[in-house]
Amino acid sequence: MQQKQVLLLTKSIKEKAIKEFYSKERPTTLCIADLGCSSAELNTLGVVAELIETIENARQDLGNGSQEYQVYLNDLPGNDFNTIFRSIASFEDSLKKQIGSNNFGHCFVNGVPGSFYGRLFPTNHLHFVHSSYSLMWLSQVPIGIEDNKENIYIASTSPPNVTEAYYDQFEKDFTMFLSCRSKEVVPGGIMVLTILGRTSTEKYSKESSYEWDLLATVLNDMVLEGFIEEEKLHTFNIPQYTPSAEEIRFIMEKEGSFILSQVDVSEISWEANEHYYKNDLPKTAFTHYDFVKCMRSVAEPLLVNHFGESIIEELFKRYLETVQVAMTKEKNVFINVTVSLTRKG
Amino acid sequence: MQQKQVLLLTKSIKEKAIKEFYSKERPTTLCIADLGCSSAELNTLGVVAELIETIENARQDLGNGSQEYQVYLNDLPGNDFNTIFRSIASFEDSLKKQIGSNNFGHCFVNGVPGSFYGRLFPTNHLHFVHSSYSLMWLSQVPIGIEDNKENIYIASTSPPNVTEAYYDQFEKDFTMFLSCRSKEVVPGGIMVLTILGRTSTEKYSKESSYEWDLLATVLNDMVLEGFIEEEKLHTFNIPQYTPSAEEIRFIMEKEGSFILSQVDVSEISWEANEHYYKNDLPKTAFTHYDFVKCMRSVAEPLLVNHFGESIIEELFKRYLETVQVAMTKEKNVFINVTVSLTRKG
Repeated sequence: MQQKQVLLLTKSIKEKAIKEFYSKERPTTLCIADLGCSSAELNTLGVVAELIETIENARQDLGNGSQEYQVYLNDLPGNDFNTIFRSIASFEDSLKKQIGSNNFGHCFVNGVPGSFYGRLFPTNHLHFVHSSYSLMWLSQVPIGIEDNKENIYIASTSPPNVTEAYYDQFEKDFTMFLSCRSKEVVPGGIMVLTILGRTSTEKYSKESSYEWDLLATVLNDMVLEGFIEEEKLHTFNIPQYTPSAEEIRFIMEKEGSFILSQVDVSEISWEANEHYYKNDLPKTAFTHYDFVKCMRSVAEPLLVNHFGESIIEELFKRYLETVQVAMTKEKNVFINVTVSLTRKG
Repeated sequence: MQQKQVLLLTKSIKEKAIKEFYSKERPTTLCIADLGCSSAELNTLGVVAELIETIENARQDLGNGSQEYQVYLNDLPGNDFNTIFRSIASFEDSLKKQIGSNNFGHCFVNGVPGSFYGRLFPTNHLHFVHSSYSLMWLSQVPIGIEDNKENIYIASTSPPNVTEAYYDQFEKDFTMFLSCRSKEVVPGGIMVLTILGRTSTEKYSKESSYEWDLLATVLNDMVLEGFIEEEKLHTFNIPQYTPSAEEIRFIMEKEGSFILSQVDVSEISWEANEHYYKNDLPKTAFTHYDFVKCMRSVAEPLLVNHFGESIIEELFKRYLETVQVAMTKEKNVFINVTVSLTRKG
C-alpha cells in the first residue's frame, strides 16, 4: 500500500546510508537485497535503480572505475517471480539511460525465494539490505489469542494477553530477522527498513488499527446477517504487528548485532493513492476506491483462506461503504517507521 | 530430452571434477550455477543435489566444518521460474535427509533470468558451472541461409554455405559463452557441459540431423497438401548446432581461457525415455510417443512462432507416424558430448 509515497519519503535516508557505505568500503561487487519485494509492486526495481544511481554518482565523484552490482529480489516462494523477471531487461535498459555513463559496469539481478525469517544468503555477503512494508507481517498468527473473538487485530476491546501475544510474536520474528541478517550482512553493512507502525506507546492505537477495526465491523455485521459463522470470525486474526520506533529500537538493542543510525517516523494519508479525486470537488468526493483496492490486495488471500471465496465481493463492497463513511468524519493516516541500521564489527 | 539418462551418464565426470576442485580450494561459500536449467525438467535440482552430495562426502572425509552453498539456476527470462521456486522447499528437505548430516550448512538457491550468451554473474564468483542440453541452442538462426529451402537444419542436401553459416554461428556463440564465463569463474574453477552433438567429422551427420530430417519430411508433405505455404517452410530453420568434440576443443583452445580436462562422448537411444514399451512385446511395439513428446516440447514454440497454432496437432500426429516407421527400420541415437573444463590461472 502507498508504496510509491513511502519510497519517496525514505529516499534521503537510503541515499545517505548507501553513499556513506560505498564511499568508505568500495567493494568490487556491491551486493544489494530487497526483502519482501512483491511482484505486484514493480516499484521493487525502482528502489534498486534509485540506490544504484546514488552509488554511480558517488563513484563518478570519487573517480572510481566501473562497478558491478549483484541485486537480490526476495519474496516467499509463492510470489510471482516470472512477472518480475520479464521486466528486468527493460529495467536494465532504463538504468543505463538514466545513468548515462559509458563505463557503467554490470547489474546482475537474481530472484531469491524464501522467508526472511530464515537464512537467505551466504555469510558476510550483503552490503545493503532494503525492505519496505514487509516486516510488519508476522511469520504466523500469534498463539493463544482465542479470546480476541470479534476483533481481528489488536482492538480497543482486545484483552491484554492478546496484545502481549501480538507483541511477543513480533519480538520473536524481528529478533530472528536481525539474527539471520547479522550473519549475512558484512560488518559496516547497512539495512534500511520501513515498517507500517505507530507513534503511540500504547499497543492499541487507532492510527495503526483502524483499517482492521473497520474490516471487523463489516465481518461482524455479516455474522449477524448469516453470511459468516460466528465461530469462523472468532478464529480469524490478522498476522501483522505495527511496532513503534521505540519497540524496534528495544528489540534491536537486545539482539545486539546492529547500531541504529537513523530513525524517521512519517505519516501517509489513506488518500495518498487516490486517483479518482477531482480538484474541483469538495474533499468528501474522494471515493477511497484505491485505498480499498490496496487493502483488498493485502487481505484477500488471508480472508479467502479462512472464509472461502464466496463472501469476498460482498465483504469488500461493504468495506468500501464503511471506509467512505469513516473518512467523511476525519482524516486517517498510516504511520511509517523507517530505520537505518549498521552492522557492528 | 532424455535429460535423466544424460545426467546419469555424466555423473562420474561431474563427481570427479567437483571433488578435485573442492578438496584443493575449500571455499567458504561454494558457488554453483546450472545454466539453461529449464523449469519443465525438474532434474535441474537433481544435478545440484548430486553435486552437493559429492562435496559433502569429500568434506566429511577431510574432516571439514559445515559448508555453505550458493546455487544459481539460470534460464531465459521467459522460463517458468515460479514452478522451480515452489519445489525448492521440498528439495532442501530431501537434501538434508539424503546427506543425513547434522552439520549440513546452508544451501541458498537463486533464480538468474538471462541469456548465457551474455554476462550473468559477478567477476571471479563461480566455482562450478553445469549445463546440460542447452549449449547446442544458438542465440539466433544463422544469417544467410535462405537457400536451405526445404531443409530445416543441416541436411544432406544443404548447400555448403548453409553448413558453414551454422558452424560460424555456433563458433561465435560458444566463444561468447566461454568469454563471459571466463570472467565469472574463479581461476581453477570448473565447467561441466553436456551438448547434443555428433561423432562424425562431417558437419552433416545422420546421427545429429535425422530427427529434424523427419520433421522436414512432414513439413514438406504438408506444403504439398496445402496446409503450409511453401515460402513459409523455406524461411524456417532450427537455431541449433550439434558440434563434435573436436569442434568444441578447437573453439575452446582458440578462446584460450579454459583447459580441457575430460571429454566423454556417449550415445542415448531415441527409445531411452519410452514408458509405453512392454517387455513381452517385440521391439517394434515401441510407440515412440515419449520421444515425440520430448521433440514437441522443444520444437513447438519455434513452430508456433513461425507457422501459427493451427498446424501443430496435425504436424505432430504425422511426425509420430513418421518416427514410428523410421524406427522399425533401424535404431537411432542421440550423441552427447560432455566436456569438463578448468579455468586457467
